[in-house]
Amino acid sequence: MRFTSEQRLDDGVLERAFTLGEIPGTLWTSGSAPAPLILMAHNNGLPRGESRLVARARHAAAHGYAVAAIDAPGCGDRPRSAAEEQDRADLRRAMRAGEPVDEIFESFIGPLVDKAVPEWRTTLDALLSLPGIGGPVGYSGWTAVGIRLAVVEPRIAAAGFFAGGYVPRAQREEARQVTIPLLFLLQWDDEGNPRQRALDLFDAFGSKEKTLHANMGGHTGTPWFEVEDGERFFGRHLK
Amino acid sequence: MRFTSEQRLDDGVLERAFTLGEIPGTLWTSGSAPAPLILMAHNNGLPRGESRLVARARHAAAHGYAVAAIDAPGCGDRPRSAAEEQDRADLRRAMRAGEPVDEIFESFIGPLVDKAVPEWRTTLDALLSLPGIGGPVGYSGWTAVGIRLAVVEPRIAAAGFFAGGYVPRAQREEARQVTIPLLFLLQWDDEGNPRQRALDLFDAFGSKEKTLHANMGGHTGTPWFEVEDGERFFGRHLK
Repeated sequence: MRFTSEQRLDDGVLERAFTLGEIPGTLWTSGSAPAPLILMAHNNGLPRGESRLVARARHAAAHGYAVAAIDAPGCGDRPRSAAEEQDRADLRRAMRAGEPVDEIFESFIGPLVDKAVPEWRTTLDALLSLPGIGGPVGYSGWTAVGIRLAVVEPRIAAAGFFAGGYVPRAQREEARQVTIPLLFLLQWDDEGNPRQRALDLFDAFGSKEKTLHANMGGHTGTPWFEVEDGERFFGRHLK
Repeated sequence: MRFTSEQRLDDGVLERAFTLGEIPGTLWTSGSAPAPLILMAHNNGLPRGESRLVARARHAAAHGYAVAAIDAPGCGDRPRSAAEEQDRADLRRAMRAGEPVDEIFESFIGPLVDKAVPEWRTTLDALLSLPGIGGPVGYSGWTAVGIRLAVVEPRIAAAGFFAGGYVPRAQREEARQVTIPLLFLLQWDDEGNPRQRALDLFDAFGSKEKTLHANMGGHTGTPWFEVEDGERFFGRHLK
């Protein structure tokens, strides 16, 4: 892991960009005592520099967590294959035309998840070897990647998932194998994501401790207090 | 309003029993500065002295709220009519036999709500005239009574409802007229209360700001952290 830039932000948080082989990432920390770690991923491969993710990451870092985000293959600025570009073009066209989009989502979100999870695990290895990062480890954000990670990665102790993104059928099946404490965040009137599918997924998770939070405001309208609720959830399980 | 007993509890909370005409109630307070008020009612008329309600009331009082509970007509130790006793006996028999219970619930919960709401308003008048109680006013607990109160009583500024109780058809209709901020608490696998009916009710509320929290653990298994979440909700709207 090589740090490529570093800046101290006005909330006292240290923001460091890193590369780990081909993986570009960002680490937000504050203080020097070993901190629990939160892996933060945006649904469907939005870039790690996206402002809402950065705001959440900085808030958690200012409250005693180490927070890391990466751009997984095909996400953020990472190069995309011609097939991926074609899938995304097909998706935009189908959405504009009001046509069904599930099969297009399956064809490109499934492979994104398959490629992202090993890179998140490699990143986790590297992060836990840094001074000042102590674990335990939580995960926040992209549901499909989080389900797979929670199933294959025993170091993930608790997870907050955002329901607003396509979850491939494979991960909907795997949901029953997830047993860690979960906080599942749903936008009740998310225009692009069927509510019943999200409720079915919440029902499917195998976790004995799982909590659903649903709010109004459309896909991007999650109220800010949910950031604080998420940190209290992690506080119960990581601290 | 006449205080009939008073004791200082080990958490520093002052617990006072009162009567207001025929209405028996309890008031929990701490400190002397004017505090926002929470009216706390148990679903379906459980007594105000029930241990889970008392624990919630004391916690909120210790954190700066004045909290009041009453036994409304037919609730707690208040006398019941022969018809009410018959309805409750019918309900127990139907439940044991696995027969439908909606119509029995309608026949006795509906009138309980009709009689409870005016007494809560009378109590609210008296409470707000006391020194040390400043408003604004929140409501917590029994959904059916809370819906009617939120519709007819403009002094209720925010409400937390517990989904685990029968809501008469009249209040399910009135839900659309509720516009105050809401926190709706659902036990996902509540054996006696159909989940879909609770989700439909959440959907029906007219409030622009409404949040659903769902947890595992059956009807009485609400995790304690929801008490703290509820107080943060009131903190956003009453403080």
